Amino acid sequence: MTDKLTELSNRLTDGMRPFLAMDILKRARELESMGRNIAHLELGEPGAAPAPRVLEAVAKALPEPQGYTNAKGLISLREALSRYYADQHHVEIDPDLIIATMGSSSGFILAFHAAFKPGARIAVTRPGYPAYLNTLNGLGFNAVEIPVTAANGWRLTGADIEQAFWKMPFDGLLFASPANPTGASLDRDGLFDVISTCKRLGIQVISDEIYHGLDYSGPSISALELTRDAIIINSFSKYYCMTGWRIGWMVLPEHLIRRAEILQQNLFISAPTLSQIAATVALGERDYSEEQKAHYAENRTLLTQGLREIGFDLPSAGDGAFYAYAGVSRFANDSLKFCETLLEEIGVAATPGVDFDRTDGNGFVRFSYAGTRNSIEEALERMRRFLK
Amino acid sequence: MTDKLTELSNRLTDGMRPFLAMDILKRARELESMGRNIAHLELGEPGAAPAPRVLEAVAKALPEPQGYTNAKGLISLREALSRYYADQHHVEIDPDLIIATMGSSSGFILAFHAAFKPGARIAVTRPGYPAYLNTLNGLGFNAVEIPVTAANGWRLTGADIEQAFWKMPFDGLLFASPANPTGASLDRDGLFDVISTCKRLGIQVISDEIYHGLDYSGPSISALELTRDAIIINSFSKYYCMTGWRIGWMVLPEHLIRRAEILQQNLFISAPTLSQIAATVALGERDYSEEQKAHYAENRTLLTQGLREIGFDLPSAGDGAFYAYAGVSRFANDSLKFCETLLEEIGVAATPGVDFDRTDGNGFVRFSYAGTRNSIEEALERMRRFLK
Repeated sequence: MTDKLTELSNRLTDGMRPFLAMDILKRARELESMGRNIAHLELGEPGAAPAPRVLEAVAKALPEPQGYTNAKGLISLREALSRYYADQHHVEIDPDLIIATMGSSSGFILAFHAAFKPGARIAVTRPGYPAYLNTLNGLGFNAVEIPVTAANGWRLTGADIEQAFWKMPFDGLLFASPANPTGASLDRDGLFDVISTCKRLGIQVISDEIYHGLDYSGPSISALELTRDAIIINSFSKYYCMTGWRIGWMVLPEHLIRRAEILQQNLFISAPTLSQIAATVALGERDYSEEQKAHYAENRTLLTQGLREIGFDLPSAGDGAFYAYAGVSRFANDSLKFCETLLEEIGVAATPGVDFDRTDGNGFVRFSYAGTRNSIEEALERMRRFLK
Repeated sequence: MTDKLTELSNRLTDGMRPFLAMDILKRARELESMGRNIAHLELGEPGAAPAPRVLEAVAKALPEPQGYTNAKGLISLREALSRYYADQHHVEIDPDLIIATMGSSSGFILAFHAAFKPGARIAVTRPGYPAYLNTLNGLGFNAVEIPVTAANGWRLTGADIEQAFWKMPFDGLLFASPANPTGASLDRDGLFDVISTCKRLGIQVISDEIYHGLDYSGPSISALELTRDAIIINSFSKYYCMTGWRIGWMVLPEHLIRRAEILQQNLFISAPTLSQIAATVALGERDYSEEQKAHYAENRTLLTQGLREIGFDLPSAGDGAFYAYAGVSRFANDSLKFCETLLEEIGVAATPGVDFDRTDGNGFVRFSYAGTRNSIEEALERMRRFLK
């Protein structure tokens, strides 16, 4: 089966690769169905359900027919999002500039096609969320990679952007803060540096803010606090524990909103209606989300300390999200093989660095600490014994 | 406001146009919020909720965390779909060739990118579902239109395909049976003619079977009964009354399944989990769907007879789906203006033919009979008085 996973992952098409985290999950579930116990540290999924009031609202709406909504989404949801921006980021956002999307996933598709033509060059960080590269390649755009380094806390800088741009200019930049897989966050100055550099070079910014709220060293700064030219992508998946609900949102600059709306009408019609109802309520349940975050914060300490003790290289614990991007060079030089071994031999599921970085990712593994404390303790104990 | 709608609809980009049905719906809801009573005949949406057992299953699952599923979808759903093909179409379909999608919408995106490269030429019928053209144009493919005619009951034939192909060859053909907006269905011979012609010419077939089950002159024939080379798109939206749940599925030929799975992982992760649970149960509740269909069948008679009496041109009532595509040349020569007038003056919402046919659509309007009997009676009565 190890061979099967490797073989599958190698069937590359058009520079598009499988999302190995999903392949690992699939194999992990197969092993579970054979009776094996798996410690799940491979996927960025909260272990909790949405807040109780969210579920109550959905239960109440359930008997009604749930038709398509307005393509942009329920006005109640977009008004709640507008209030969210006023409350959390002190910016005024017209609900008409907001589109409810099917998770952040469909937001990326809408953003790419609203702002660019196929063939456009769009930069992303390396390491970064694998779907960025794969989606760009799969949809016929050209991805450009900007390397970020552990030495700089994996943070993207204006200088990084400028250096890459003068080597080979690009039309857009898509970046996340907090970032996947490193948890690196930009503070206000760092974000200003990135945005002003892009403005000067004529680069359209797409700011992926999906991990906003999951910040352990100060509140997340939205690009909207600094510019109205950026496309903002966000989602209820992480902070609001709603991954499987496939509901997110985007904020667009005024000149792109109608084009994005037309794309939404045609490509997706509208986001799932019950999920839109759930999301509207979830925005008012931040106390519940903060409880989850407190739990991630504990897991973060537990996991990062444990990994370091075992011998993983982890200079930074990351500022946000729920991932530790750990160097594995002491144990292996092929992160996919290493992850397969951990999964098959000791039932620890983690994601190989090659998912996030095709150049240097063999030296890294991403461990998610979104799961239970118990799964992390179990994984650490198993690795402690196995990697001795 | 009429001016506003016209102006919006004219802001075309890259051959991509707004889905006017959605703009009409938006304006209809605006009018309703001002206290106007609107007869909704503009959208293809069942008025009923899903079957009671579907809702029970969802209510039961609600307290559990709903995480991402396997990218292809819950195995229980795919196995139920495999049984559906065995029962309804007497074909054996491996659940591994099925992917659960976010409505048919994301199925189209996966199909186009799995089977073709951007720039490929893909044919659709004219008239046809507007999102076909708009999605193809929006995603960077080249759409080719094959005209079908009222004289032939709006049915696509192998000869139509061949004639268009030799004018300018194309790589793929996307067609629906029953079709939107005409309700035209292909019987087994007609479907064989289309599929064998495509096979001979090397054209990849994408068969949109979203209106399957809603057939008034014999059971819907799946392309899978005749070939394993076609990509099948289907959805729970129509027959199972689940539009807002955004859940559908596709069946792929073996050589495309892994590429489609990788696209799904990256572009969408997985379809909404609660909707997958609901869909699994819905497949066993066909009696409920047949009750809805009996109601559409009554509406169909009522609407088509009423429209003819008023003076609309409707030689065929359509074999399936829930639309009447009526000629309006006796009343108007601009179908958008005509629909705007109906909406603003008498509160009847219908979709202009230009949504479905940019060449000859000004002579047609699509009326949906998926709604209540009352809304159809009301619409007919208002038009009877207004169009005298």
